[in-house]
Amino acid sequence: MEKNKIKIAVPASVSNVGPGFDIMGFAIDVISDVITLTRNNHEEIVIKKITGDNGKLTYDPNKNTCTVGMIHLLKYLKLNIGFDVIIEKKIGIGSGLGSSAASAVGGVFALNELLDKPFKKKELLNFAMEGEKIASKATHADNVAPCLFGGFILIRDYNPIDIVNLPFPKNLYCTIIHPQIEIETAASRKLLGKKVDFKKAITQWGNVGGLIAGLTTNNYNLIGRSIKDVIVEPIRGKFIPFYEDIKKVAYKSGVLGCNISGSGPAIFTLSDNKKIAIIAARKMQEVCTQNKIVSKIYISKIDKQGPKVL
Amino acid sequence: MEKNKIKIAVPASVSNVGPGFDIMGFAIDVISDVITLTRNNHEEIVIKKITGDNGKLTYDPNKNTCTVGMIHLLKYLKLNIGFDVIIEKKIGIGSGLGSSAASAVGGVFALNELLDKPFKKKELLNFAMEGEKIASKATHADNVAPCLFGGFILIRDYNPIDIVNLPFPKNLYCTIIHPQIEIETAASRKLLGKKVDFKKAITQWGNVGGLIAGLTTNNYNLIGRSIKDVIVEPIRGKFIPFYEDIKKVAYKSGVLGCNISGSGPAIFTLSDNKKIAIIAARKMQEVCTQNKIVSKIYISKIDKQGPKVL
Repeated sequence: MEKNKIKIAVPASVSNVGPGFDIMGFAIDVISDVITLTRNNHEEIVIKKITGDNGKLTYDPNKNTCTVGMIHLLKYLKLNIGFDVIIEKKIGIGSGLGSSAASAVGGVFALNELLDKPFKKKELLNFAMEGEKIASKATHADNVAPCLFGGFILIRDYNPIDIVNLPFPKNLYCTIIHPQIEIETAASRKLLGKKVDFKKAITQWGNVGGLIAGLTTNNYNLIGRSIKDVIVEPIRGKFIPFYEDIKKVAYKSGVLGCNISGSGPAIFTLSDNKKIAIIAARKMQEVCTQNKIVSKIYISKIDKQGPKVL
Repeated sequence: MEKNKIKIAVPASVSNVGPGFDIMGFAIDVISDVITLTRNNHEEIVIKKITGDNGKLTYDPNKNTCTVGMIHLLKYLKLNIGFDVIIEKKIGIGSGLGSSAASAVGGVFALNELLDKPFKKKELLNFAMEGEKIASKATHADNVAPCLFGGFILIRDYNPIDIVNLPFPKNLYCTIIHPQIEIETAASRKLLGKKVDFKKAITQWGNVGGLIAGLTTNNYNLIGRSIKDVIVEPIRGKFIPFYEDIKKVAYKSGVLGCNISGSGPAIFTLSDNKKIAIIAARKMQEVCTQNKIVSKIYISKIDKQGPKVL
């Protein structure tokens, strides 16, 4: 028997991970949006309620990241059925933690579950990316893919899309600080030019290589040495108040690496033990507090699953 | 007792390996230069004989790639002693197979052995790079490092230098075709601009990531998908006659990937079995022969050792 209702949790994610602009990301297991779908009697998708968005998100299903992918999916299956949608945002909008990707993935994942899985997870990626496109104006998958598949993801190529689920060391802890200020993804992206310095590009792909070698061979130190970004961070870092100070105390606490999560303002660190992850969180938050910036902190392992049915 | 004479073999290498411009390379075990050092009674290095170079290399020890590193090494140790040097070139000069790197590595490696190893292998890298600099006018290590350490090498960073010896799958066969034409490394390098397209750079670091993930997780197919170069190959490929035709027959033979070795004109392929490596060699050579280009072919496993005392 087909179900009528489903409630799912869909994780936040950290993209770029230092050098891997547009091609890397990982999911984290302590912050998740919750999405509820209920079959209705109309032939359309209706967004019934959105919480946690401070009124920022649209109720228009053709413009909301969560429902755009669902509409594409239903159209593909030629199904004229409708759903009521409740979106509970826990991942800050414009935080750099894959908020729009979580909405996009959550919508199509929940719908697919409710329809008794006509699609494999892998096949849901394109529908979710349609949703993500609405939010970021660009087709990129570095939040969508880790959010959907869980784990540490490399997007080797976009044309056609080639997703690699990377092995990673067991004791990897992620600390996140989210200063409560806003940077818009699309606006932030415009600041990056169309050309990059060849030498810097070489440095960048050396670090991408190092990061992936470190992850796949359990080399914590190499992971840390490779979390560097000579191209995007120098531009985006300036838009995050006290970024350099926060980074400094994180490294002083013993984290392996620290960088901007996505387009920021959230900042992530990776550590090889929980104690350091906790100390770093406290020290980073102290910098914000001293400078009168409200912030949230999270300590998480890498999420391996992606969305979960509740 | 200190030895008076040593003879060593030092391997050829393939750098760039598709996307990894300036940061990746591997050593191959079927082509090696041979270098012989004999302690003399002067306080200087004397190049006694060079073979296989068609008269192209200098006998001036301050300008020859093989002896420049040796001079730096002796100076560092404040040793006023001299050696006679015989250089037997087997690796084609200007072939794209790390000929100058082999000379540079061979000189310092042989000298270090003869002096009873005052330096660890790792410490020889800088001396060898001094030699390589003479040949290529740029300090890069993507042939020097694999030649010295053997195996598949990532140079994560140059400042300071950070060498990562990557694990790689057991059944990796390399086919090389060396069309007997010449491209000078320094001249070839000038053709590359100082800026690259941001989008292409992202594609490139996606492929670097894929190649390293493929190597370290024994994923032959991923290795193949990642051997792509959207930045350098489009420029350098044009200088190798019938490059596209050669590449086409290689892929048709079933190789995982095919690209330019270093700055060319040598072309390498990687395969997951020897049979394919042999077929590819024959097919690639046929293209050259049909177009009246003399060529040499080599089939090799990845060399794991680097220089060997003979």
